[in-house]
Amino acid sequence: MQREITLDDTLALAIGAGILGTGGGGNTYIGRIWLERELRQRGGVCRIVDADDVADDSLVGAVGTMGAPTVGNEKLPQGEELVKTARALEAHLGQSFEAILIGEIGGSNAIKPLICALQMGLPVVDGDGMGRAFPELQMDTFSIGGVSLSPCGLGDCHGNTVIFERVDTPLRAEQYARSLTVEMGGSAALVMPVLRGREMKQHIIRGTLALAQRMGETVLESRRRNVEPSDAVAALGNGRVLFRGKVVDVERRTTQGFARGKIRLAGFGTANDTMEIVFQNENLVAWHNGEVVCTVPDLICVLSLDDGEPVGTELLRYGLRVAVVGLPAPRQLKTPEALAVVGPAAFGYDIPFVPMPGNLL
Amino acid sequence: MQREITLDDTLALAIGAGILGTGGGGNTYIGRIWLERELRQRGGVCRIVDADDVADDSLVGAVGTMGAPTVGNEKLPQGEELVKTARALEAHLGQSFEAILIGEIGGSNAIKPLICALQMGLPVVDGDGMGRAFPELQMDTFSIGGVSLSPCGLGDCHGNTVIFERVDTPLRAEQYARSLTVEMGGSAALVMPVLRGREMKQHIIRGTLALAQRMGETVLESRRRNVEPSDAVAALGNGRVLFRGKVVDVERRTTQGFARGKIRLAGFGTANDTMEIVFQNENLVAWHNGEVVCTVPDLICVLSLDDGEPVGTELLRYGLRVAVVGLPAPRQLKTPEALAVVGPAAFGYDIPFVPMPGNLL
Repeated sequence: MQREITLDDTLALAIGAGILGTGGGGNTYIGRIWLERELRQRGGVCRIVDADDVADDSLVGAVGTMGAPTVGNEKLPQGEELVKTARALEAHLGQSFEAILIGEIGGSNAIKPLICALQMGLPVVDGDGMGRAFPELQMDTFSIGGVSLSPCGLGDCHGNTVIFERVDTPLRAEQYARSLTVEMGGSAALVMPVLRGREMKQHIIRGTLALAQRMGETVLESRRRNVEPSDAVAALGNGRVLFRGKVVDVERRTTQGFARGKIRLAGFGTANDTMEIVFQNENLVAWHNGEVVCTVPDLICVLSLDDGEPVGTELLRYGLRVAVVGLPAPRQLKTPEALAVVGPAAFGYDIPFVPMPGNLL
Repeated sequence: MQREITLDDTLALAIGAGILGTGGGGNTYIGRIWLERELRQRGGVCRIVDADDVADDSLVGAVGTMGAPTVGNEKLPQGEELVKTARALEAHLGQSFEAILIGEIGGSNAIKPLICALQMGLPVVDGDGMGRAFPELQMDTFSIGGVSLSPCGLGDCHGNTVIFERVDTPLRAEQYARSLTVEMGGSAALVMPVLRGREMKQHIIRGTLALAQRMGETVLESRRRNVEPSDAVAALGNGRVLFRGKVVDVERRTTQGFARGKIRLAGFGTANDTMEIVFQNENLVAWHNGEVVCTVPDLICVLSLDDGEPVGTELLRYGLRVAVVGLPAPRQLKTPEALAVVGPAAFGYDIPFVPMPGNLL
């Protein structure tokens, strides 16, 4: 099934992708206005296709930005880094892409593939490799499923492109690309993975672009009706609201290419009702009054109580009134193989993964 | 003119390249025994050709190791990183190399190209882009002459290869490749620049491989005759002995991918006859009793008084008795364009370049 994303959809998409970003994936504001400019310049329509509409033998590639959200917010894109990196890989492989993938549906990385696809005249596949955002390259269903992360490409705002021609492990791809991203100014265009339609269909989490849109539309509809949207958002993702309260403390530093830190929330009722959330670009673990209530890979989404706007970890500040929504991860992230890469232990937390009931979609 | 390097030549070559390394370029001991193994395994002969014997349209590439000599001494090569990186570039360009170049005649980087050429069945061109060693990528006559440093390739000991497909400035190539080299463990195989025979002939410093061999043979001959070789070495390179003395202080740290530091020498005569030398992998500036007597791009070579063995900056230690030999740089390094890249100011020293009389060759 083919459908379209137009200027009417960008705001909802940006909000929904922000929610699924679980605090990371890059703030969607800059991505959204960039997408809107590209839509205006290129016919107003971005074609979206289902994974199963892509031919088995076709070449497809996921496009996005690597780096800390704190940097992505301040270092604006030059505008051609995504397409130049994709073109460099096409030239290297001697073959053209037939569709663009979303590597990470969370945050601005849900929007960058649409921009690149518009620039290249290609459709975007509805789905992604995470069903959310994650801070590191190897944390997607393609890599977990054994798809090679090389060749992949990294590009900077000066038009420089680097091709990782062979990388032996996903962790090495993360390590080498992260180091170069830091050198490129903390934010770089990334084209990865590059794969065949056949492999893509085997590993992609389908329909996450449509889910992001629905979530954003729900927030917009709630705003029109002047109601607080977090329960409706939680319902759409088969989850629940974990906490409502005020940010009373933020620790955050941008280090080794990541925004890392911790926030503390105080409830509106009794004084000692608290939530703590730690993050590495994305929210990782939430404790309610000292007890773990949600961990990766399940989604911990922080929404402003005022307007349902998702709050990225780079925008957290004292005094914000928020709802914390927990959503169950997509089932593909809950296999033993996946949990070894995206479970709490993979982030250094000696906490068992107790899944929320159900699946994101 | 075609000639050969055999097992009879390796020791002299290693010593001479060590001298031209001016303290850096990597210790030649490991390179030499690696070269000897490859010679034994592959017919015993490495073919050397003159630059003018290479066809104008042929593809040639310089091969070496990037990193701090302090690391190269401890992290042994895996053995295939050079050839794998060269092959990755051949595949990327869809064309084969017809000869291997020496990017840097100083230190082990004089020897690595011979190893790679043996592994690929190719000849090595007699000459290089520095006439010595320099710590950074952009510091060669190819880059100074405007040859593009991209595409170039970097490879690690795990067989991973990265292609810098487009790099806008030589300094950027240095910056990005250095960062990745650090991540690769502080030492990486480098294939750069990749160019046509025509461009190579325009910029290469001819005959430096033969010069290195002659210098090494002179040292070996002096050892046989039990005489101190530094005057004879200096004469071969049209220079002079600047100082003889004992190392009385060494400051050295391996930082940002370089071995940086300073040594102080005390003369054998009056107590207050001293020399100070600062280095960044290579020796940069020498002060005799507080007065500058030699600066980059002229060569400051430290030789052991015992046996004429060149002493790398990573091997400097208290008590070593050494001769400091100053050699004039090749004329290609003394143009205004070259001095902007390899003069004292390029290394942060606000010192005018007062050239030694003459040229290295």
